[in-house]
Amino acid sequence: MADVARAAGVSSATVSYVLSGKRPVAPETRAAVEEAIAELSFTVNVTARSLRTGRSSLVALIVPDIVNPFYAQLAATLQEELRERGLHVVVCNTRARRDEEQTLLAEAVQQRFAGVIITPFRLKPRDFAPIVDAGIPVVVSADVSFGPMDLVTPDARAATRRALEQVAAAQRRRIAMIAGPRDATGGDPRLEHLRALALQLGMALPHDMVVRGEHTREAGAAGFAELMSRRHRPDALFCGNDVIAVGAMEKAHELGFDIPGDVALIGHDDASFASLVRPRLTTIRYPAAEVARAAAQLLTERLDGRKVHKTVRVKAEFVARASV
Amino acid sequence: MADVARAAGVSSATVSYVLSGKRPVAPETRAAVEEAIAELSFTVNVTARSLRTGRSSLVALIVPDIVNPFYAQLAATLQEELRERGLHVVVCNTRARRDEEQTLLAEAVQQRFAGVIITPFRLKPRDFAPIVDAGIPVVVSADVSFGPMDLVTPDARAATRRALEQVAAAQRRRIAMIAGPRDATGGDPRLEHLRALALQLGMALPHDMVVRGEHTREAGAAGFAELMSRRHRPDALFCGNDVIAVGAMEKAHELGFDIPGDVALIGHDDASFASLVRPRLTTIRYPAAEVARAAAQLLTERLDGRKVHKTVRVKAEFVARASV
Repeated sequence: MADVARAAGVSSATVSYVLSGKRPVAPETRAAVEEAIAELSFTVNVTARSLRTGRSSLVALIVPDIVNPFYAQLAATLQEELRERGLHVVVCNTRARRDEEQTLLAEAVQQRFAGVIITPFRLKPRDFAPIVDAGIPVVVSADVSFGPMDLVTPDARAATRRALEQVAAAQRRRIAMIAGPRDATGGDPRLEHLRALALQLGMALPHDMVVRGEHTREAGAAGFAELMSRRHRPDALFCGNDVIAVGAMEKAHELGFDIPGDVALIGHDDASFASLVRPRLTTIRYPAAEVARAAAQLLTERLDGRKVHKTVRVKAEFVARASV
Repeated sequence: MADVARAAGVSSATVSYVLSGKRPVAPETRAAVEEAIAELSFTVNVTARSLRTGRSSLVALIVPDIVNPFYAQLAATLQEELRERGLHVVVCNTRARRDEEQTLLAEAVQQRFAGVIITPFRLKPRDFAPIVDAGIPVVVSADVSFGPMDLVTPDARAATRRALEQVAAAQRRRIAMIAGPRDATGGDPRLEHLRALALQLGMALPHDMVVRGEHTREAGAAGFAELMSRRHRPDALFCGNDVIAVGAMEKAHELGFDIPGDVALIGHDDASFASLVRPRLTTIRYPAAEVARAAAQLLTERLDGRKVHKTVRVKAEFVARASV
């Protein structure tokens, strides 16, 4: 630490503040310290800290689908946010499987991880008891609560309403949705919000216009084919996330349907490829970087000793592109 | 284990074979055992194994860019392959930064990881000495060797030749490349291969037709703009990977250039979005799933006691779509 302080021309205390984040440091000072650290290949003495706290410096990000770029972006920003605390993010993929989710939580306890940030898919609230009992800070990033833990959750009401208003303005009335699987924990809040808001706007989302599947391109393709094979086809199709939407779009190209001519398509999340596909995907943007920053902040507060749990709502935003 | 055997109606030995992968088990038997495991929330007793071996059950996959779907796919397949050995893959993102690469290798030693699979970007061969000395198996996945360690590496000669032949058949002669940064370890083998093969086919890739940057969309966009602003524009543009190529394609749309009308575009890797963009990206496919299987196999052999290092070449494949 003394070497870093010397190289950066600051006091050891300042270096310590930069590393711990415990006190604010001027941006230029921080930059000088970070540069000195990089130059000296200085790393926090992990062994010593680990012995002192009984904790590793690893934070696990446990997600249902690492191939979904939403989670990759979440991971990348989380890493940037936690790095200055000397914490390293490792990403664990559950493939939306309950057994993998359970095993990875157990591993986090076993390895004495510094913290866990998780988007559960099929876990039940009671599955979190062992990790909470072990005193490992947990932040849940999900549409619903999984119990008395820190939570980052979307506020997508206004964005979903705007999406529905645009659908209505385009004279579309036959709404459908490709939703998540029936056995996901907490059901599918995106479906419930959409249905409630549609009713408020005098539109309907009847049960026979909802098909369900995993959050995959394959499920999107299958769901699109099923809905479009009906006698009364939908003219606006909402998808549980952008991965599903892109699968639906590929199937539309294959079957010769025009988007949005034959049917409008609305995704959720604004994953990186949403603006790359043609037509560009209209979607409800849930900003991964902001979610990551909120989760990092909650985790940091826990590590600094906060005991009561908190919920942070991150506002979703309607992004009008070319698929409606 | 006895509980699982009872629930699955098999012997304890069979359960052990399924978990260890040491002997083949009939698919139906495996399915029954896996179902029983899932139902009983059985997890291998990590503590006991960890005490016995002094190792965790975690394998670190260390990559330069987690937002590149090539690496997400690599991670997903690796996880499937290593799961039956009771190993869990955690993904670590270096953002192509040397300090992060060094820190993550040090963490892997510190945490006594079971193994490391890494695509280095700015590491030098000597950076691997501590982890090799610690006896932690390392598999390098890269275009060049980083020393006496297991290596999975592409054989892209035939695929690159086919790409060049198609470019030549389309009467294109002014080849350019958006390559990786000059300070990447081992330079840019993809550029060197391309140049050598172009010469063999009577084409040229002069130095002033090569621009360099990080493996990012931003670098692809900047590289495209630079090359197309020249008096003698290229008519065929190779990219270091698909992320760069997609950045170039976005810039082409923005500047009003037609692909392939004005300039052909060839990517590398066949990342998941390569078939989603319009025009669909012609690319040199480096199959992530096969790379993952080869890496998992090498790591497994090391864990089983193999001492000498091995190199596995994975064949790349030319994928003709619509951008040439």
